[in-house]
Amino acid sequence: MADTDSQLALIKRGADELLIESELVDKLKTGRPLRIKAGFDPTAPDLHLGHTVLINKMRHFQDLGHHIMFLIGDFTGMIGDPTGKNATRPPLSREQILANAETYREQVFKILDPQKTEVCFNSTWFEPLGAAGMIKLAAQHTVARMLERDDFSKRYAGGLPIAIHEFLYPLCQGYDSVAMKSDVELGGTDQKFNLLVGRELQKHYGQSPQCVLMMPLLEGLDGVNKMSKSLGNYIGIAEPSKEIFGKLMSVSDELMWRYFDLLSFKGSDEIQRLKREIADGRNPRDVKVLLAREIVARFHSSKDADDALSDWELRFQKGALPEDMPERSVAAGAIAQVLKSAQLVASTSEALRMIDGGGVRLNGEKVSDKTLILKSGEIVVLQVGKRKFARVMLA
Amino acid sequence: MADTDSQLALIKRGADELLIESELVDKLKTGRPLRIKAGFDPTAPDLHLGHTVLINKMRHFQDLGHHIMFLIGDFTGMIGDPTGKNATRPPLSREQILANAETYREQVFKILDPQKTEVCFNSTWFEPLGAAGMIKLAAQHTVARMLERDDFSKRYAGGLPIAIHEFLYPLCQGYDSVAMKSDVELGGTDQKFNLLVGRELQKHYGQSPQCVLMMPLLEGLDGVNKMSKSLGNYIGIAEPSKEIFGKLMSVSDELMWRYFDLLSFKGSDEIQRLKREIADGRNPRDVKVLLAREIVARFHSSKDADDALSDWELRFQKGALPEDMPERSVAAGAIAQVLKSAQLVASTSEALRMIDGGGVRLNGEKVSDKTLILKSGEIVVLQVGKRKFARVMLA
Repeated sequence: MADTDSQLALIKRGADELLIESELVDKLKTGRPLRIKAGFDPTAPDLHLGHTVLINKMRHFQDLGHHIMFLIGDFTGMIGDPTGKNATRPPLSREQILANAETYREQVFKILDPQKTEVCFNSTWFEPLGAAGMIKLAAQHTVARMLERDDFSKRYAGGLPIAIHEFLYPLCQGYDSVAMKSDVELGGTDQKFNLLVGRELQKHYGQSPQCVLMMPLLEGLDGVNKMSKSLGNYIGIAEPSKEIFGKLMSVSDELMWRYFDLLSFKGSDEIQRLKREIADGRNPRDVKVLLAREIVARFHSSKDADDALSDWELRFQKGALPEDMPERSVAAGAIAQVLKSAQLVASTSEALRMIDGGGVRLNGEKVSDKTLILKSGEIVVLQVGKRKFARVMLA
Repeated sequence: MADTDSQLALIKRGADELLIESELVDKLKTGRPLRIKAGFDPTAPDLHLGHTVLINKMRHFQDLGHHIMFLIGDFTGMIGDPTGKNATRPPLSREQILANAETYREQVFKILDPQKTEVCFNSTWFEPLGAAGMIKLAAQHTVARMLERDDFSKRYAGGLPIAIHEFLYPLCQGYDSVAMKSDVELGGTDQKFNLLVGRELQKHYGQSPQCVLMMPLLEGLDGVNKMSKSLGNYIGIAEPSKEIFGKLMSVSDELMWRYFDLLSFKGSDEIQRLKREIADGRNPRDVKVLLAREIVARFHSSKDADDALSDWELRFQKGALPEDMPERSVAAGAIAQVLKSAQLVASTSEALRMIDGGGVRLNGEKVSDKTLILKSGEIVVLQVGKRKFARVMLA
């Protein structure tokens, strides 16, 4: 294994917060492979790049020789939202969950080494636990401390209902850590409270408490909101190579660096070198191509990455795109209205005439359907005639 | 079955509150035997008269032809207090619970007809429920509503910890009602919140909500505090006949009427007649004898009741006890100090001399042990010499 300092540097790259660093140092110094836990919700098996921030961090640990545990929360998935109020959490059947788990495997093993990754299902320990075990688990935490969780305290203060089972879910997540004897749990910054519950429960059960490594939430294509399927601002890792390539080429130069930090496996030194080259006059678009190729190659192949680049160059008629294309954020909707809002035409009737005349392009491809609807969350390059371009963020 | 009005009159006798009377009337009018539930904690199998207030009410329902369900809360009994903070709720083994249940049977079947009483154990439905079922159950109630329960709201406001499993126990009690399809649940007034949870859960599960009949908590021998084993102010129904008789004879005239209402199966008309007789000059002690005989006969036999009366008369040298014996409440402790505190002697040294001389009697029996300790919660008649008497409540 690498020495503690260089392990720690890689572990902390891109991370938001590490609790508690001195404890992690002690664990690393033992020289044994640490047990690394990350939990995933089985309701959304289509991973996007936002999810991979965490998986990339698991890969870092794996590369360092630690034991990776990929936890699928099938137990709570089978329960869903018992109040039925949260339509995005319907109860899943065991068959659905197993199918989702298989989809997960296919996707994450593009990043992780399947031979060195343990896939866990938390029904393994919750089913034998029983109703009595659940009550005993609930005895390990107080109502007051649970109400300290930010979203609970706000809802309670605001008179919004909190169903009692919502108090049990953080305890379940914490009990996963006990059952898995995890040394480190990875999670998003929004998971901080739940991750810390795991530490406390492990102490209750006589275990050394896990360290908690929180990764930031990746911004979506709009560079503002968290990447999410429901916002439409995402890149799914199962999308076709040309889609992934094109979407990555559409991000702003600023967001590109963020993506380098969190998504690229290039060394920190190399990323610094690229930044210097751009400061010295290199076209940022060429660097963006490096990122897009790396990501496409990861989820498809190098060949696919080459093809996607060729296709992209062809569609955008290499060299035809202006380097200082204006960026505009407009409301999603019908193509004609979007063209007008983006100030590429003076009126919707002009927009319709231009489409009729074959003078409108969307991501380099001619638009012929005048009723085309552009969806919220997408980012597209729109072109009217030969010289009017805009990168348009659809809100 | 009797008509609705006379059923209702018997059901309401001695009760503190009935929710909701119009619903109970509707249920009674159907003419079918109603399912009557009362739950008991398996940790305290030694019943005292306080417990029998509820069992007497079950007997009323049984006499009216309804179906009585005696529920033993073995499921939560096997869990105990998982935090270990409440030493009075240690987890019980299945063997202990079965032994306790047998003791229960022996005791309650002195009041209820065993042929017409269903004994239920709630592990029957909680064990198959599983951890998932417990989470679904927890989804049926909100944190805010649970915090409305009086003791929870006080503890929360006072910064005292409430463990989360404490929120699950009222839901478990409510789920018992669902599993048992109860039409009426009996409970103490201190159980109001939990009894109402049962109504709500039954609605969730598509059942007609149970009516709730709350019985008052019986005062102990001191006439002030709730009868309880820990306070020592109780009459256990398994105590020897002479003990029960003597303790009942020790209660105040005022408390005697309370006991008549809640413990006697004499008709309300007859109790009114006894009150009139005392107002007309009958010695209250003679009426107290009627109560003591009834209770002893219930838990032992008529013969035992006769013997207990003879013994009691003998011990107190019939006619020797003054009718207006002073009542004093003093601290429990060594006999000499108690005699002094009760103003029967001027000093503890006088008390010791009187004991040496054979001049001190405790409940009619000569005291020879100068180191005798009198325990808190007991009520005793102390006599010094021929003429000094006091009924002493030991605090």
